[in-house]
Amino acid sequence: MRATLMYGAGDVRVETIADPSIQKPTDAIVRIVRSCVCGSDLHPYHGLPEQEQGMQVGHEFLGVVEQTGADVATVKAGDLVVASFSYQDNTCEFCRVGVQTACAHPEFGFFSAAQAELIRVPLADGTLYKLPTGVDTALLPSLLTLADVYGTGYHAAKMAKVSAGDTVAVVGDGAVGLLAVLSAKQLGAERIILMGRHKVRTDLGIEFGATDVVAERGEDGIAKVVELTRGGAHKVLEAVGHRPAYDQAVGIVRGGGVISRVGVPQYEEAPVGFASLFGRNITLNGGPAPVRAYIDELLPSVLDGTVNPGKVFDRTVSLDEVPAAYQAMDHREVLKALIQF
Amino acid sequence: MRATLMYGAGDVRVETIADPSIQKPTDAIVRIVRSCVCGSDLHPYHGLPEQEQGMQVGHEFLGVVEQTGADVATVKAGDLVVASFSYQDNTCEFCRVGVQTACAHPEFGFFSAAQAELIRVPLADGTLYKLPTGVDTALLPSLLTLADVYGTGYHAAKMAKVSAGDTVAVVGDGAVGLLAVLSAKQLGAERIILMGRHKVRTDLGIEFGATDVVAERGEDGIAKVVELTRGGAHKVLEAVGHRPAYDQAVGIVRGGGVISRVGVPQYEEAPVGFASLFGRNITLNGGPAPVRAYIDELLPSVLDGTVNPGKVFDRTVSLDEVPAAYQAMDHREVLKALIQF
Repeated sequence: MRATLMYGAGDVRVETIADPSIQKPTDAIVRIVRSCVCGSDLHPYHGLPEQEQGMQVGHEFLGVVEQTGADVATVKAGDLVVASFSYQDNTCEFCRVGVQTACAHPEFGFFSAAQAELIRVPLADGTLYKLPTGVDTALLPSLLTLADVYGTGYHAAKMAKVSAGDTVAVVGDGAVGLLAVLSAKQLGAERIILMGRHKVRTDLGIEFGATDVVAERGEDGIAKVVELTRGGAHKVLEAVGHRPAYDQAVGIVRGGGVISRVGVPQYEEAPVGFASLFGRNITLNGGPAPVRAYIDELLPSVLDGTVNPGKVFDRTVSLDEVPAAYQAMDHREVLKALIQF
Repeated sequence: MRATLMYGAGDVRVETIADPSIQKPTDAIVRIVRSCVCGSDLHPYHGLPEQEQGMQVGHEFLGVVEQTGADVATVKAGDLVVASFSYQDNTCEFCRVGVQTACAHPEFGFFSAAQAELIRVPLADGTLYKLPTGVDTALLPSLLTLADVYGTGYHAAKMAKVSAGDTVAVVGDGAVGLLAVLSAKQLGAERIILMGRHKVRTDLGIEFGATDVVAERGEDGIAKVVELTRGGAHKVLEAVGHRPAYDQAVGIVRGGGVISRVGVPQYEEAPVGFASLFGRNITLNGGPAPVRAYIDELLPSVLDGTVNPGKVFDRTVSLDEVPAAYQAMDHREVLKALIQF
């Protein structure tokens, strides 16, 4: 099959490699129909040391089941499925309470081979979600966002317990930030301040429900949000992952409020003491989104067209064009590239 | 009046100073009947630089209203009252949602003059809580805990959303830790692991509801709790405030769980990234307890003797004996000293 491999920072190639095969009776093989490039794929694109052996990449996909192991019960060859970016049994103690990304199964893990024609899916019953048959092809981009970005933005809003009347600030105008805006809107937020400075993106944010856009960053950005909200936002959804975004979040959250993070932290230590979180009773939460848990909730509005999260894809490429898509996203010419097979 | 003043680390004196007086129409003057020494008073006792002018100390008190300003409406001279350790209007946006320790009133602050015969109470209507008349003197120690330690332990358990069936771990066997145990029990925790190594204290913890005691600290303590709970506690109540206690909390919390802190952090930065909090969707919260918000909830069980939080006082001293009480608490001969006037 053809697959995307990364050989080092800035070095993405599409090559022919061996097809994946069933290794355990709980596995399935899926032929990918839509995949995409994630903002988090840019981290290795920036920092991966050069290596002899290419590393497969990509963790978001939607496709048709090609083959299933003997123990797979919920999907069968021919089913159109979307996968969560993590694979889990969906039955353990953690999965049952909605923390699928802390699944206790020894095979639990995160996909990193989805920018390819075929993919092996461990724990297929807990990972693949069967989509309705005969679904309109035009819906595929929005359905694909259930694999990660929509569920991740929704996780940010859910962990922050966004509810009617809340003032929410979203840090970051990437695909996850924009879908955090959409999610906050769906959960009833009254005011949604989007912090970002790329007009094309913030315009989409406004379409998704943002009521204000703050382009300033750092101290200026903090001052602006504190002024707009007269003291800070009840809920801050941090969708970047860099330390300045954390500091921004701490600066704009209201006393007693919540900072919910879904941007993968590129730092380990950060301020949490009296001056930052403790003194004002701020809650810090979030983490890798258990998107599998949210598909049931999010699917109906996607299917009936109430929401169109697939609008975050602003370029469609073929598999062979994936290296160029990385470059375009890195240059911020493209928000999120859809890969169509 | 006689009052306790601190002149530097280890230098506590009881001296005669001017009586406080009404300064604003919202003030009251209270004649103190019971006060006490707090574990957090030991921080300046360890670290206060030597100074010419003594600094008044103490933030927990129960007493009789002596005088009220013209605007005070809810208490009058002769009322027996308990105060929260913070003073607040109890009417602002933050107070209304139960975050009294983030009160927006310009006079908002924390008491630091309660180890004395008299005290000026700013924002008396929002700060003083009138106790029933004719209350049994034997209940005064337990009623005094509503000023801080009981409400603070309860805040830890509330922020962690301790509920029926939870496994809770409490880090620290000081008065707050022990009352966090009591609070977790009241909120329905099934298993309560108390981490502490002072037998007299952990025995009281068992009386308050602890089901297990873990004396080990550091890696050994983490291993023990993880083994006992098969993977960590759902809720960790951190009642110490030193960095090793934070690290302990991170080590023993279960994926998807909560670390609720009420020990005042003696550090500013700490790990919050993928390896510590983010990767396992851990929630970090807590802060200075809005104890004023909890008095209504906690008072009935104190009055009817269902709970006896006053058991944390294991020595009673006169005001003149306060310097010796500091020393005894510092040497861990005493858990918490009650000051009787």
